Amino acid sequence: MIKTRNRSEREMKQTDVLVIGGSAAGLVAASTAKAYHPDKSVLAVRREPEAMIPCGIPYIFGTLDSSEKNILPDALATNPGAEVLIGDVTGIDRENKKCVLADGTEISFEKLIIATGSTPVVPGWLKGADKKNVYTIPKIKSYLDDIKGGLSGFKKIVTIGAGFIGVELSDELNKAGIDVTLVEILPRILGTAFDEEVAADAEAALKEKGVNVITGKGVKEILGNGSVEGVILDSGEKLEADAVVLSMGYSPNTELAEKAGIKLNERGFICVDEYMRTDDNHIFAAGDCAEKRDFITRKPSTVMLASTACAEARVAGMNLYDLSSVKSFGGTIAIYSTAIGDHGFGTAGLTEEAARREGFDVVTGSFSGMDRHPGAFADAHKQMVKLVVTRDCGTVIGGEVIGGLSAGELTNVIGFIIQNRMSVSSVLTSQIGTQPLLTASPAAYPLIKAAEMAVKRLRKQ
Amino acid sequence: MIKTRNRSEREMKQTDVLVIGGSAAGLVAASTAKAYHPDKSVLAVRREPEAMIPCGIPYIFGTLDSSEKNILPDALATNPGAEVLIGDVTGIDRENKKCVLADGTEISFEKLIIATGSTPVVPGWLKGADKKNVYTIPKIKSYLDDIKGGLSGFKKIVTIGAGFIGVELSDELNKAGIDVTLVEILPRILGTAFDEEVAADAEAALKEKGVNVITGKGVKEILGNGSVEGVILDSGEKLEADAVVLSMGYSPNTELAEKAGIKLNERGFICVDEYMRTDDNHIFAAGDCAEKRDFITRKPSTVMLASTACAEARVAGMNLYDLSSVKSFGGTIAIYSTAIGDHGFGTAGLTEEAARREGFDVVTGSFSGMDRHPGAFADAHKQMVKLVVTRDCGTVIGGEVIGGLSAGELTNVIGFIIQNRMSVSSVLTSQIGTQPLLTASPAAYPLIKAAEMAVKRLRKQ
Repeated sequence: MIKTRNRSEREMKQTDVLVIGGSAAGLVAASTAKAYHPDKSVLAVRREPEAMIPCGIPYIFGTLDSSEKNILPDALATNPGAEVLIGDVTGIDRENKKCVLADGTEISFEKLIIATGSTPVVPGWLKGADKKNVYTIPKIKSYLDDIKGGLSGFKKIVTIGAGFIGVELSDELNKAGIDVTLVEILPRILGTAFDEEVAADAEAALKEKGVNVITGKGVKEILGNGSVEGVILDSGEKLEADAVVLSMGYSPNTELAEKAGIKLNERGFICVDEYMRTDDNHIFAAGDCAEKRDFITRKPSTVMLASTACAEARVAGMNLYDLSSVKSFGGTIAIYSTAIGDHGFGTAGLTEEAARREGFDVVTGSFSGMDRHPGAFADAHKQMVKLVVTRDCGTVIGGEVIGGLSAGELTNVIGFIIQNRMSVSSVLTSQIGTQPLLTASPAAYPLIKAAEMAVKRLRKQ
Repeated sequence: MIKTRNRSEREMKQTDVLVIGGSAAGLVAASTAKAYHPDKSVLAVRREPEAMIPCGIPYIFGTLDSSEKNILPDALATNPGAEVLIGDVTGIDRENKKCVLADGTEISFEKLIIATGSTPVVPGWLKGADKKNVYTIPKIKSYLDDIKGGLSGFKKIVTIGAGFIGVELSDELNKAGIDVTLVEILPRILGTAFDEEVAADAEAALKEKGVNVITGKGVKEILGNGSVEGVILDSGEKLEADAVVLSMGYSPNTELAEKAGIKLNERGFICVDEYMRTDDNHIFAAGDCAEKRDFITRKPSTVMLASTACAEARVAGMNLYDLSSVKSFGGTIAIYSTAIGDHGFGTAGLTEEAARREGFDVVTGSFSGMDRHPGAFADAHKQMVKLVVTRDCGTVIGGEVIGGLSAGELTNVIGFIIQNRMSVSSVLTSQIGTQPLLTASPAAYPLIKAAEMAVKRLRKQ
């Protein structure tokens, strides 16, 4: 790690490839750029002294002892030979191909990758959001350490927003012995990621762990005299709270790009093509700040995932000097998973609801079995797979999983099925490997049986 | 379940689709035949009163209380409307399209599926294999119950043959408190399924559990006066034993087919095309008795897996009356996994050694990381992925996994990559879903990093 000098010692640096940002997308972009262009110098500039593993953040508050255990190592980029500099980029000078840092340092580049990430949203209409002990979940270690440090003083916390971060955080705060109430304005938790039957299962698992869940109600105001005392819902209900955590989404960090005249899309993300190139041929963008298009609908998407960010970063790093139609990004499939206790939940592609809303004529197939065989093993867990299939050509465009802790990788199986645009018939005749202690039975493997159910419905038409 | 009557009450039955066999392949074939041809009557005839879940059999001897917990339910076939009959088919009359049972019952059919399975091999050259307490592992409940019943009398057992069954059985007998020595003639355990570095890891895990492992030595003779007393290795070494279990492979049950003049291949399996049709258009075969061709090499294969059997059975059941080029079987990929303690091991497609032996010019890429992120989670386990990639077009033709209990499903991810003939570049830019408690990190996901390593080697040429 190179520290920048004082402002008084302004200097000019030169690198072939400059990456703004050094979290997941930034470090992977730098690493890939160096691996694919070993003769080029690669430098990532990050504001924070240390990067957090993005999806590990909720676990700092319960399962992990501290944020120290959740550091994303710079070695990811430095081992392959890229450099990491701690500094605050304040401007991009496209004409002269250089960036300016807050301390006055200037860094010239041949190619630039913008990986500036995202910032938690605090809605302007939310009264009282500026009170003491109202937190968001940014990817900033010192901020997270502050929350963690204060936890022992909190008996009751209200978390607002039941996306993955909100759910995982509520689960972890609850594990830490705090009375947690999760408030979600949609009729259910994880409502945009899962269809109703899967979300209901996740909600039941979360409640069973002791988290209070209130759905279908928005938050009107955060109460308190300086410091938080409670929350008023739009139903008029009042919840007591010593602290409030807002998990209401993230907005892309695009100020630098915008100031430099780089085009943004209608949702405020930096426009990129399938090589992750902005409208400036020498400037790329990857991760939360970069435009996403849904793999299936081709519409702009707002899904931000570290895993997608890393895939984008690899594509950007590979295409810096020569475009490759093979190494391009086909659109966001949105593969996520989460765990509540020993229950795993996963989703890839479109949910049935999203598919219908988008105008796809689909059939679905679902099957529930066990994730071990026979089901008599002590760690056997119910496993359910649902597939969403287009009626016209039988292509699998989405899938959801409920299971044990292997649900994450099973969700990745579905991700590859969608990425390969497989038909449900070819899934049905696919070979899978099964083992009593590791997977469902070959005769009743829920993924295959779900395909069978979908094929049956397709045949009936 | 329908019981056949006494021989004195000979009868003639009629069914549209007859399946000989009612284990994994037989029940799945019957179930699929009925699902795809709801107007046809479907009958599976099985010799044993109850079928065993094939891959669950080793676990009867340790983790599971009894074979009762390992029964493959006939409901698989009867729920969709097929029937199961307990009976012993002794002949196939192709001209008159009927089968004859041992009790004289005749069953006429329109379409026949042969799913007669396989029988453990006892090599003719092995002296003393007929002694008391020398066992094999057939898929026969009563036989397995006999072994299990005798276990309390055995202090030392020698298991011969370190394929998956031999390894899992040794692990389970050891769990049951028996002193187990596993003898394998190849230089390592699981030697045909894994490359050396993965097999070495599995061997270390097995030894750590307390199983004695002897590799590179064959068995010359089983000693004893009537009942087993020991084993002499071809090195001259003598091992004491109260019982010996032979796990030296399985041979396909093809007597019925052969007697009926149905063509067998050079390895003794029933010849089938990609619709699982024999050389008689009305007769299909699936499972261990049916010919397998390797997905990559296109050569006949002898790999017998319940999961492959089920895929073949589905294809047979779908193609009985109308062939479908979509619903065909593209060849055996050989996806297996196993678990030793909390270590999972998996393999799909060709190992590096097999690929080179077959004449493929390949490069490999390997990466070791953790299967949780951060790795600080209590249940985190080392995860290693190795990919085998053709040098000419970069197609992934094999992969191996070491990990925790999610290794089985991760191996299935690789299975789908191979089935879709993905290039390693497209794997490298693929999207995966990651979650701290369920998977490796998005920035260091071993499958993606292994692809990166392989691409790096491809680029260097």
